[in-house]
Amino acid sequence: MAGSPSRAAGRRLQLPLLCLFLQGATAVLFAVFVRYNHKTDAALWHRGNHSNADNEFYFRYPSFQDVHAMVFVGFGFLMVFLQRYGFSSVGFTFLLAAFALQWSTLVQGFLHSFHGGHIHVGVESMINADFCAGAVLISFGAVLGKTGPAQLLLMALLEVVLFGINEFVLLHLLGVRDAGGSMTIHTFGAYFGLVLSRVLYRPQLEKSKHRQGSVYHSDLFAMIGTIFLWIFWPSFNSALTALGAGQHRTALNTYYSLAASTLGTFALSALVGEDGRLDMVHIQNAALAGGVVVGTSSEMMLTPFGALAAGFLAGTVSTLGYKFFTPILESKFKVQDTCGVHNLHGMPGVLGALLGVLVAGLATHEAYGDGLESVFPLIAEGQRSATSQAMHQLFGLFVILMFASMGGGLRGLLLKLPFLDSPLDSQCYEDQVHWQVPGEHEDEAQRPLRVEEADTQA
Amino acid sequence: MAGSPSRAAGRRLQLPLLCLFLQGATAVLFAVFVRYNHKTDAALWHRGNHSNADNEFYFRYPSFQDVHAMVFVGFGFLMVFLQRYGFSSVGFTFLLAAFALQWSTLVQGFLHSFHGGHIHVGVESMINADFCAGAVLISFGAVLGKTGPAQLLLMALLEVVLFGINEFVLLHLLGVRDAGGSMTIHTFGAYFGLVLSRVLYRPQLEKSKHRQGSVYHSDLFAMIGTIFLWIFWPSFNSALTALGAGQHRTALNTYYSLAASTLGTFALSALVGEDGRLDMVHIQNAALAGGVVVGTSSEMMLTPFGALAAGFLAGTVSTLGYKFFTPILESKFKVQDTCGVHNLHGMPGVLGALLGVLVAGLATHEAYGDGLESVFPLIAEGQRSATSQAMHQLFGLFVILMFASMGGGLRGLLLKLPFLDSPLDSQCYEDQVHWQVPGEHEDEAQRPLRVEEADTQA
Amino acid sequence: MAGSPSRAAGRRLQLPLLCLFLQGATAVLFAVFVRYNHKTDAALWHRGNHSNADNEFYFRYPSFQDVHAMVFVGFGFLMVFLQRYGFSSVGFTFLLAAFALQWSTLVQGFLHSFHGGHIHVGVESMINADFCAGAVLISFGAVLGKTGPAQLLLMALLEVVLFGINEFVLLHLLGVRDAGGSMTIHTFGAYFGLVLSRVLYRPQLEKSKHRQGSVYHSDLFAMIGTIFLWIFWPSFNSALTALGAGQHRTALNTYYSLAASTLGTFALSALVGEDGRLDMVHIQNAALAGGVVVGTSSEMMLTPFGALAAGFLAGTVSTLGYKFFTPILESKFKVQDTCGVHNLHGMPGVLGALLGVLVAGLATHEAYGDGLESVFPLIAEGQRSATSQAMHQLFGLFVILMFASMGGGLRGLLLKLPFLDSPLDSQCYEDQVHWQVPGEHEDEAQRPLRVEEADTQA
Repeated sequence: MAGSPSRAAGRRLQLPLLCLFLQGATAVLFAVFVRYNHKTDAALWHRGNHSNADNEFYFRYPSFQDVHAMVFVGFGFLMVFLQRYGFSSVGFTFLLAAFALQWSTLVQGFLHSFHGGHIHVGVESMINADFCAGAVLISFGAVLGKTGPAQLLLMALLEVVLFGINEFVLLHLLGVRDAGGSMTIHTFGAYFGLVLSRVLYRPQLEKSKHRQGSVYHSDLFAMIGTIFLWIFWPSFNSALTALGAGQHRTALNTYYSLAASTLGTFALSALVGEDGRLDMVHIQNAALAGGVVVGTSSEMMLTPFGALAAGFLAGTVSTLGYKFFTPILESKFKVQDTCGVHNLHGMPGVLGALLGVLVAGLATHEAYGDGLESVFPLIAEGQRSATSQAMHQLFGLFVILMFASMGGGLRGLLLKLPFLDSPLDSQCYEDQVHWQVPGEHEDEAQRPLRVEEADTQA
Repeated sequence: MAGSPSRAAGRRLQLPLLCLFLQGATAVLFAVFVRYNHKTDAALWHRGNHSNADNEFYFRYPSFQDVHAMVFVGFGFLMVFLQRYGFSSVGFTFLLAAFALQWSTLVQGFLHSFHGGHIHVGVESMINADFCAGAVLISFGAVLGKTGPAQLLLMALLEVVLFGINEFVLLHLLGVRDAGGSMTIHTFGAYFGLVLSRVLYRPQLEKSKHRQGSVYHSDLFAMIGTIFLWIFWPSFNSALTALGAGQHRTALNTYYSLAASTLGTFALSALVGEDGRLDMVHIQNAALAGGVVVGTSSEMMLTPFGALAAGFLAGTVSTLGYKFFTPILESKFKVQDTCGVHNLHGMPGVLGALLGVLVAGLATHEAYGDGLESVFPLIAEGQRSATSQAMHQLFGLFVILMFASMGGGLRGLLLKLPFLDSPLDSQCYEDQVHWQVPGEHEDEAQRPLRVEEADTQA
Repeated sequence: MAGSPSRAAGRRLQLPLLCLFLQGATAVLFAVFVRYNHKTDAALWHRGNHSNADNEFYFRYPSFQDVHAMVFVGFGFLMVFLQRYGFSSVGFTFLLAAFALQWSTLVQGFLHSFHGGHIHVGVESMINADFCAGAVLISFGAVLGKTGPAQLLLMALLEVVLFGINEFVLLHLLGVRDAGGSMTIHTFGAYFGLVLSRVLYRPQLEKSKHRQGSVYHSDLFAMIGTIFLWIFWPSFNSALTALGAGQHRTALNTYYSLAASTLGTFALSALVGEDGRLDMVHIQNAALAGGVVVGTSSEMMLTPFGALAAGFLAGTVSTLGYKFFTPILESKFKVQDTCGVHNLHGMPGVLGALLGVLVAGLATHEAYGDGLESVFPLIAEGQRSATSQAMHQLFGLFVILMFASMGGGLRGLLLKLPFLDSPLDSQCYEDQVHWQVPGEHEDEAQRPLRVEEADTQA
């Protein structure tokens, strides 16, 4: 049905073998390297004289659960908007994130917390692993519908490594502050995916154009994703910030920023819409830009007003991006950005990085008091001035863009290898390439996959 | 398409300008008045000698997140039951709540926590703001499908102010106890919306009657809303109660009350249903009445039995309301209550207020011990007897009904101003008036909006 | 419409009367026996000199909320996969769980915490009640579509009692450890349901076969259930474990196990699928087996590698079960297992019990240190060797299988009583038997229920 018999046979084995290999290798590495940390190990925890209430679990786990819901429910359903790609959107999100969180536990562990020959894990590593999975899913959004699951797993395999290195360079070598990941998660994930999408450019993609839109119900499913991302974003940005006022302030700032980006999105969507009508694509996506834009600065003394202003700006820019820039991105730059990640994660991520530069540059001992230590330790310890911190933040942005672009490009070339499970140009955005799909209605036999014509790409 | 060209042009600008104005004004007021409180501010928090575990964030934030999910997921999807109004239900919920939470931060701040020229915000103000947004959404339910987004924003603008004043009168001047808002949220929101709906009565609404029901899938989407409201209601009622046993008991009581209202609803729905069949409308709504009815009393020593009895009563009354009273409300009282908020929030809210009167009147030093201080401070301090507290609770109910009715009426008259974006009688309950709507199936062009005939109202 | 007039009249009264009777009886028992425990009672809590932060509410309630979401959202929507049984799946889940949690509060209370003539309730009893509701819903999955709500309530009435007794025998008499319920919840619930399904075997069920599959959208709704179960399973297994490192480690192990079972499921699903295509049924269910399989052992020192290996094994076995064993179960063993609970809960539950035997047998004082007391108190106190604990765990498994089989069988015979609301063979998997169902599309009148022919069973 989809291509020649040998191609089908290849697909039959490609995904299973890759899953089995990746899971087997990960398990072996876990056996050798991964150990409970002293807050999860039965013996180590009881060796200290701790109150159970002091276990980090109680400060971080509720936030972790919110992040976990965002990654699997939020990202998964947000991409269900395509009319015939719901199984793949939510299913491949599930597969990619389940792999990425294991693999990033290893990569981040080797880079950040490798002591005595072991990686020590606990709720903090769980959050970090989910964050990395989030970046992989952002990249997935840029190539959604045009890649097979084996391709995506390879993308994740390599992106996780690069994510870890990039994060290490920024946070540890440059001393950049980026608690909620405007830079390391959103900007990195978006430009990695966009460059990848550029390399995988399909000039014949209009053969699948009739499946590229939504239907009424798929837009409602996507709103499940949107709303869960929106409500839990305060937990995302605050999940790893300093305990106490730090976590509290980060959640508060994100809450305000998201509210303002929602109003900005509705305003602009109606303004640029046909007949003044709202566009669901804008609401589903641009209203979330408020969470992205304060990812770096929400732990800082952004002020509630600053959060509102930043969120409003992000919602506005993101909506305009969907309306005016996405078509240009495809026609002029040959980037087919299925979910518009450039508008939701790319531009707001860069704005968020710049906002971080600004707010860091304005940091004073007076404004932060003894809290300066937990937000800007290098300034508090006198190793850096606020201006120097700001310059480091700015430099970090360039490092990310370089890493993401090079990485995305290299991976894109790799993914063009002909044996991989890339769908034909006429079969993009179509679940039936990868799934056994029931009909739309009862009594309907399985819908035949329409192959418009022999595809030159095969 | 929908009305004359000038009307369309008006709509094009009305919503954007209103959003931009409201967001701009809010941001300016935030800049002038809103500051971090001492649990979110970096300098203030570290000035005290606090353990991070003492930060209120850890006691309230998990509850806040549940409330947040109820407001945006719960209310939003509960109203998706209409077959052609899903985008508007979930979208306008999103818009209204995002605005209301900002605006109520200001209004409640001025009334409740205005010190030294500033409003101080933290997790408690976030919960209060979401509560107020909840009241606005309850009112929205009464006029769902018959109002445009600009009308709704104006409704929210004015309702938030009245909500704040009403709450101030009850809680601060009258010393009423109402932790979970049976009175201040549900009764107020419901009667505000109902009076509004009365003033906006449309005698020609049968022109849109064919869109007023559900379809199979829209009822399943609505159940997402129902279930999320149901599971998180214990957090709603307990979010702002006294720490320790207070929060614990409130959650427990609400849990039992909801369970009993569910059984009551199934029993009555089958009993009054055609051929003994269950009605989805009852299950979606009346099963939640158990959360509403203990909003006032669940922090009190209601006893687990009391919670079951109250919940069962509420589920029963609410189901009977849907079956028998809603038609009368429309035919006799000219109130077109789209979501039946009178049955879910109105009657159970009043019952909840009366239950609060009863349980407060029965309060004794023996039953509450030293916990009396946190539930009934005025009784504990000897300023009031239990009977006097009960009388104050009862008087509070009349104050609310007066506030809500007058407020809803005045706002209704205001919203009848002819320049606003009210849909035509033949275009109610229809997303296409406000949204660019894709077809129901792939390959289907955008569905034409059927305008039955020239509408006299335009 | 469905059967004779007297049958319809019987149905009209059966469910209401049963609900009213059960709720009434439960309320009376609550009035007599159920009291707030010392962490929820206003007077008792303040009598001690507690810090509010010590209230168990803050350690358990966030986990409770996740469990609550799993029971009502997770189980409910997971079963919506059937094309014409969504109302019943989510609705009867709602009804059954709302009743089971009340009833199990009483049963578990009498068995586990009956002191001074009273049952004392708080967040721990809420979690236990939800766990029991989970077991009932697992059994529901085996008979989904073939039973009426009154039958199901009777099933729950009796299963809850047996669940309580079985749990009491295992945990209290045998000293079995089973924090996340691989044995007491999953194995028990599955085999109870399977034996019940065997007794209720319908040889003519092919008359409803055309409704037994999914449609595109129902599979997406089911994925909502899957993903919420998957993300919150770490909270399920850890909800009642020892505070501190115990809860932390349990959540971590479950997280890894689920990730590995997801990769195992995708691998096997593609391997055994037609043309190498993935099957949604596998992804929706088998990916969750990783949560089931570590229910017993995740609180132990399973090691992260052990969690991955167990999860991978469970995902693999479960997928193979759906592909190869479910058809045999029906054709050879006459068990019509609608949701495949044997694959998701039965086999992974037994595997989880055996894994518990293994990990308990390997327990050493060295590995657990002072934490041994909280995981294996009988070993720590020197009453048992690790090997003896392992043997007790193994014996516990046989006790469960015996209890579940006998219980399921007896109840099955009871439910065959002719006056109950069992649907006809030609009307299984059909919402219209129990619900007023709107059409699939607007303007469509209520769909007629197709009764293929006179049914011999009636």
